[in-house]
Amino acid sequence: MTKNTIPKYLTISKEIIQRIESGELEAGDKVPSENELIKTYNVSNTTARKSLLEVELKGWATRIKGKGTFVLNRSDDKHLTRVLGSFHNDLESFSNNLLKEGFTPRNIILEKTILENGISSNINGRYYIIDGPVLKIHRLRYADETLLKDETKYISMTCCPKINILDIEESLNKIYIDKYQLKLGEVQRTLGTTILLPKEPENYFDVEIPLAVFILDGAIYTIEGKIVEIEKSYYRGDKYKFSIKTKPELSKE
Amino acid sequence: MTKNTIPKYLTISKEIIQRIESGELEAGDKVPSENELIKTYNVSNTTARKSLLEVELKGWATRIKGKGTFVLNRSDDKHLTRVLGSFHNDLESFSNNLLKEGFTPRNIILEKTILENGISSNINGRYYIIDGPVLKIHRLRYADETLLKDETKYISMTCCPKINILDIEESLNKIYIDKYQLKLGEVQRTLGTTILLPKEPENYFDVEIPLAVFILDGAIYTIEGKIVEIEKSYYRGDKYKFSIKTKPELSKE
Repeated sequence: MTKNTIPKYLTISKEIIQRIESGELEAGDKVPSENELIKTYNVSNTTARKSLLEVELKGWATRIKGKGTFVLNRSDDKHLTRVLGSFHNDLESFSNNLLKEGFTPRNIILEKTILENGISSNINGRYYIIDGPVLKIHRLRYADETLLKDETKYISMTCCPKINILDIEESLNKIYIDKYQLKLGEVQRTLGTTILLPKEPENYFDVEIPLAVFILDGAIYTIEGKIVEIEKSYYRGDKYKFSIKTKPELSKE
Repeated sequence: MTKNTIPKYLTISKEIIQRIESGELEAGDKVPSENELIKTYNVSNTTARKSLLEVELKGWATRIKGKGTFVLNRSDDKHLTRVLGSFHNDLESFSNNLLKEGFTPRNIILEKTILENGISSNINGRYYIIDGPVLKIHRLRYADETLLKDETKYISMTCCPKINILDIEESLNKIYIDKYQLKLGEVQRTLGTTILLPKEPENYFDVEIPLAVFILDGAIYTIEGKIVEIEKSYYRGDKYKFSIKTKPELSKE
């Protein structure tokens, strides 16, 4: 039968692509590894490798050395999606998310200062105070040549002494947990939106037209209720979407 | 001592207001009832009533007949906040939220149609299909005289037969659960943002300037994975914020 002449690796890659198209595998998810394909489909490692290569060549995924093959962000409207409300996702760094989606992340530090007197911030009518010293980091975060996020974080140096000398390229949440052994509790975030005009001095997004941006205000607590970090960031609205899942089982009171 | 000349009801109202200012009591929360105040402070019902009246008079809360006194939305920037990611909050209707915040809700139905062939929708690159018949309801939702939300919902009439003849003023989620005995599973929502211009024909927000709006795409499933409802709505960005809490204990995998 002619059917049998379709190479096995194409059948496998097609199945993987269908899982991406159906949404079962989402942007940033790991696609099955070579070893998993070998077991699942009972094929040789050459076939498994060719299957993954095919998925990559068709533009659905990207391989990251030593880490695996990850689903690229291919939503029709070209928005990147960030998941909120899942701690699991919070452990992934901004740069790593972009890498998995096929971009080259780049950061420019605009400001890095130790505020000896701490700071207070009003998020949604509620006051948040971090006693000094506090590390302020203002970073512009690019994917390839596009500024995606204008991020300012205030980090408690009482919770995280000497965090100013650490490499903060990786997930800060991971640093809080692994390096400072903090037990993180609630993360509170608020999303607003506004229009940034091209001429505004605080508008670092290099766009000639008015831009809808998300304003993200966030506060991260330890389980003892101490504030570890306050964030105020702007995300380009034409590049980003935020997604939130609610599960009745978990959140019913 | 002069301290003792401060009337008891003022001390109590001050304590309640402090709980609101600190964020312990949030917009829409119920403040302690007369009976609770009588017990907690060991005061007469006149004093308890005067305490609540004082909180109300100072503009921090509003009384709703037969329901109690609720914290008003008084964030400095005058945004209303909606909590995402909590099923508990999903059970509250749009109108009821506004009532508790001191507004008069009002709805205009722009379209109410039964789509015999069902619909499909692309949310974030993922296709959602509801087989017909599907009830489409397009509603403009006002607080006092201001349009806050332009809401379109598609409801499966296989899951909810004859939902077109029901009063859908109350929470639809409650109707799905109480009236149709559906076991609701995941709720998937995506927030985008865009600029609506005054002249655009689909812009029902009666504003003379470009407006940043949230675009909310949502899908509600039964635990068996059937789609009950798809939503596509616009929220005024100058009136709304969305808030999301993440708790590591619940979401760690």
